[in-house]
This record gives sequence, structure tokens and C-alpha cells, in this order.
Amino acid sequence: MMDRCYPSGELFSEMLPERLPTITDVRAAAGRLKGIAVRTPLLESPLLNERLGGRLLLKAEPLQRTGSFKIRGAYNRISAIAPEIRARGVVAFSSGNHAQGVAHAAALLEVPATIVMPRDAPAVKIENTRAYGAEVVLHERDERSRAAVAGEIAEERGATLVRPFNDPDVIAGQGTLGLELAEQSAAEEAELDLLLVPCGGGGLVAGCALAIGEASPETEIYAVEPEGFDDMARSLRSGQRVANEPGGSSICDALLSRAPGELTFAVAAPRLAGGLVVGEEEVAVAMAAAFGYFHLVIEPGGAVALAAALAGKIDCRDRTVGVVASGGNADPALYRDLTARA
Amino acid sequence: MMDRCYPSGELFSEMLPERLPTITDVRAAAGRLKGIAVRTPLLESPLLNERLGGRLLLKAEPLQRTGSFKIRGAYNRISAIAPEIRARGVVAFSSGNHAQGVAHAAALLEVPATIVMPRDAPAVKIENTRAYGAEVVLHERDERSRAAVAGEIAEERGATLVRPFNDPDVIAGQGTLGLELAEQSAAEEAELDLLLVPCGGGGLVAGCALAIGEASPETEIYAVEPEGFDDMARSLRSGQRVANEPGGSSICDALLSRAPGELTFAVAAPRLAGGLVVGEEEVAVAMAAAFGYFHLVIEPGGAVALAAALAGKIDCRDRTVGVVASGGNADPALYRDLTARA
Repeated sequence: MMDRCYPSGELFSEMLPERLPTITDVRAAAGRLKGIAVRTPLLESPLLNERLGGRLLLKAEPLQRTGSFKIRGAYNRISAIAPEIRARGVVAFSSGNHAQGVAHAAALLEVPATIVMPRDAPAVKIENTRAYGAEVVLHERDERSRAAVAGEIAEERGATLVRPFNDPDVIAGQGTLGLELAEQSAAEEAELDLLLVPCGGGGLVAGCALAIGEASPETEIYAVEPEGFDDMARSLRSGQRVANEPGGSSICDALLSRAPGELTFAVAAPRLAGGLVVGEEEVAVAMAAAFGYFHLVIEPGGAVALAAALAGKIDCRDRTVGVVASGGNADPALYRDLTARA
Repeated sequence: MMDRCYPSGELFSEMLPERLPTITDVRAAAGRLKGIAVRTPLLESPLLNERLGGRLLLKAEPLQRTGSFKIRGAYNRISAIAPEIRARGVVAFSSGNHAQGVAHAAALLEVPATIVMPRDAPAVKIENTRAYGAEVVLHERDERSRAAVAGEIAEERGATLVRPFNDPDVIAGQGTLGLELAEQSAAEEAELDLLLVPCGGGGLVAGCALAIGEASPETEIYAVEPEGFDDMARSLRSGQRVANEPGGSSICDALLSRAPGELTFAVAAPRLAGGLVVGEEEVAVAMAAAFGYFHLVIEPGGAVALAAALAGKIDCRDRTVGVVASGGNADPALYRDLTARA
């Protein structure tokens, strides 16, 4: 069942989830990822803490292999495919970070990978996906669903579709970030009052909710999204999955999902305190702060959680706040432009 | 003896070193720094390795407290001062990274700190030094020796001068970076053929030579300097300390020393394979590479060792190369300018 290809990630698919991932899946993923995923550091800046009036712990996933958390879910998913099926390859659709994660994970597992990417994805993400050894198929955004294109390729080749978020093994893999964060903050004697997690389709926040919900049930977890793509925030409020208006755009290219996945929403909804939304200028300020306080490059989509903390979207005063910086694959010119504006 | 103030760091002082630091001092420093200095990660990029044809392991000290390795030596030095003397404060002279290191170390140890800084130091370094709680005394570069100004202040106040490099406890503190690098590369099953270390006055490279010379005597260690400030390279070649011409300038503000210290040279000379020299464009290329491959902000002076590897100043093909990125306190506008040029 695990390797059956079906076109999920599609909006409001009527396909029922086969199973919801659990903390046991996250722990098993951590075992598989040992020696593969980097245990990225939890950074802290006394000067930033002073400015905030609270304690901020930044999980620095730009330092992850491939520059984002996506290798965690991709590797966990691909390694779960039976070897005889795996040999026929994997297919993914992604604007860039999942693309690189799948490409590199596939290369590590010696599996051929084909990635469907939008033609307007950051050039560096397309180049790197190729450099990791994958075949890249470029696609006009909004022309046809990328998921459908990827599904067709998978069917033709007998390859396995590795969905970006709506998959139990992908969610479990992303959750390993949350496990590390729980262990690392415990080692710093920090009890997290809040955890802020960037959210596109919701794989990362769902996985982290599984991990942190277990280790630290008192922690309030928030999904953070860019303006115009606040589908998770609105879905959490309304209690059911709602979609963004099509045709929107954002500098946060990593977070441009239409709606939460069935699985990610089912996992996240009972465990999240809510959703926060940030604007472009707030993202730019967060990227500049990461430069100055942490000397860390964060891409726009990876910086939304830090942006929420710095912009006061939630009160951080006298609280201990875990913040996930989810990726660092920033286009250099855009990075310079945004950090200069801030 | 340890707390006697004398104006070292001066060119060709005839003062004989009281003692040379040893690996035992470095190990003791590691004990003192536990829970204070961050054990910064050793980063690796498969894409960069492929480009180089070798294996490059980057010690990411921009992620250190205060954004550079300087907290290591400063904390180790200040914590060695007897409490009754310590209470009268510490004084340092620095263009910025040592300033921040001393300011923060002093604050952690509840010791008042006065820092003499050149008026043309990057604004961010001056601001941060103040933010860490130190009194900053600004000084015209080349008007009078900063060391002399700092020495006078120390004498007036009965405070202890914390020299930037020419001090056994400072060298031992900086050496803890080398100890970590040795342990971390061993954990990666990487035997270092080469180690490239940025060099100003030589405290870091001397300390690393003590640590790596012990753990991995086969490793060839090179000091890396910017053009116009290659005093260590020339001193190593000639077998005695030689100075740079006065009046030079470089984007590598952290590395603008006149000559190696007596102590740093005495420790480094028998243990180093040589010195390498890089130009501004090579530094800019390295900073851009760190952005793209590691998502790490490195300041110009912190990027010289990476620059040497990327520019082929030494052959890295089929070799395992440790590279120290020593600091990340880059001026934002200069950073944008340099990375755009590369």
C-alpha cells in the first residue's frame, strides 16, 4: 500500500488517508535519518533576547543537507519503499526545497529521481536539484497541476511519487526536527512556552506537533504563513480545510500551497494553538535579523516564524520561544534586496 | 604573574614570554568554556565537495556567541584572573571581534569592561560591544597605538589588560576550537590532510596548532592572511617575526595586525606548514560560496581560509581539508556589495 501512486496533494481529494502518522513513526524516522540528516544547532543570541524581552531559540535548518528540512521527509519516505519498486525511481513536484531533498535523498539511496519544477522557481534551486543528480522537468506554474504532471510521469515509469507533505512517512520524517528541538531545548534547560513553525502544506508543523506534543504537551504550537497563503490559519479557525484564492504570489516561494493536506490537517488541527500570518516587510526584517544576530542565511519562506516573533504577532515577553528557520536556499539578488530594505 | 599588565601586542617587544601555552592549557580552557562557548558545527556540502574534487569541512564559528571565536580566548583569560583583581575590571583594544568577545565574557563573569576601538571599525561591531555592556573608547587608527591607550586606561584603573592574541590564556582558549574540530572530524571519520586557519596576530592558528598537532600530527596546518597583511607567512618563511608596512588597508578588518606576537609565533612556527595569502576578490568569492553552499554569513576576515581553498592556493583535490570560518560580524552593506561582485 505504501508504494501505491496516487495523485494526492490535490485540492480536496476525496481519498481517505490510509493512516495517520504517530510519534512512533517519528522515532523510527529519527533512526533511519541517523548519520544522514544533520542534527542542526539550536541558536541563541543574548542581544536578540534582550531586544525581545524573552528567550528565543532558533532551530537552524538552513544548515541542513540541501539547505532545508526537506531531506528529512524525503529520505524517510524513499527509504520506506521496497527495493524492487525503488529501483524504478521516484518522482516529485516542488518549487525547490522538496526537489533538492528528494534529489539528494534519492542519490544517497541510489534511486533515479525525476523532479517537476515550476519554470519560475529560483534558479539556484533548479541548478542544485540537477547538481544532486536528478532529472528536472520544467513546467509552467498554473498551466496544469504539477501534481498531475508528476503523477503521469510516475505512472509511465512505474516510479513512486514522493509527495511534498501529504504523506505519513514525509510527515514523520519532518517530525524528527521537532524531536531534536525538544532534546536540544531540554539540554539548555529551556521549557518551550511557544513553538513557531513555517507552514506551506503543513508537513513540518504536523510532524513537529507530533514530536513536541509528546515531549512537551504544554508548548503552544503555531503554524506561521505568509499573507495570501494563510490557508492553515483559516482552516484551523474554521475547523475544516479551506483553500487560498488561486493566482496569489509571495516572496515566500517555499510556502505557496493551495490548502493544507488531508493528513497534515488531520494531524495538526487537534495539536495546534492556531495560525499566525506575516507580511513581506516583516519577513525582510526577520532575514536581516538572522543575518545580524545569528549570521545565518534564511530564505523568505524559512523566515516567517522568526518574522512572527519579531513583529510581535504573538507575545514573546518573558517566554521561551522555539522558532524554526526551515530553509536557507535564498536567491542571492532577492536576499540582498530584502535585507537592504529591512 | 598572570595578572600583571604589560603593554604587549606591541611590535617587537623585548619582553620575553613568561611561558608558552601547551595542549594541557587548551584542555583546561575547554573545561572552563563548557556551557559558555557554543560547540559550533562542522559543516559539509556535497555540492561544494564535488566542485573542489576533495572533502571540505567548515568549522562554523560565525555561529559562536558574539559571532566569532574571540569569546573563547577572552573568557578563558578573564576567568583566570584572581577575583579581587578581576573586580577592578578589564581593558582591551580591538577592531571589533575581540571587543565583543571581551565585553560579553566580562559580562558573563560580572566584570566591568572598557574597550578601545578604532573609530573606523564596522558600526555593527561598535554597537554590539556596547550592547554587551562594555564602555567603548573610540580612537583614531594610527594616531597613537591602541595598545598604549588601553595600557594607560588599565594602569589608571588597576584593571587587567586582555590582549587580543599574545597571551598564553588567550591562545589556549582559541585552541579549544581546534580540539572541537579534531573531535568532530574524527566523528565524521575524516582524517584531516590540511587545516586552513585565518590569521591576524596568530592566536587562533597557534591555539589550533597546539590542539591539532596533538590529535592529528600528520595534518598540515596553514595560516591564511589577506594581501598586504601577510606578516605570518613571511615570518614563517624567514624564521623570524617580520612586520607589515604601516598604512595598508584591507576589507578584512579583523586581520589587520602589524606582526605575529612573540608568543603566537613561538607556538606556531614549529607547528605550521606555511602561510597562504588571498586577495579581495577571492575573499568575496568565498563569502558568496558560504552563502550558497552553507547558508552561513562569514565576514571578510573570517572567509580567508575558505578563500584559499576555493582559489586553489593549495591543492585540495582528493584531500580532506578542515577550514575555519572564524567570524560572521559582517557590515551588511559591505556584505551585499562583496557577494554581489563575486
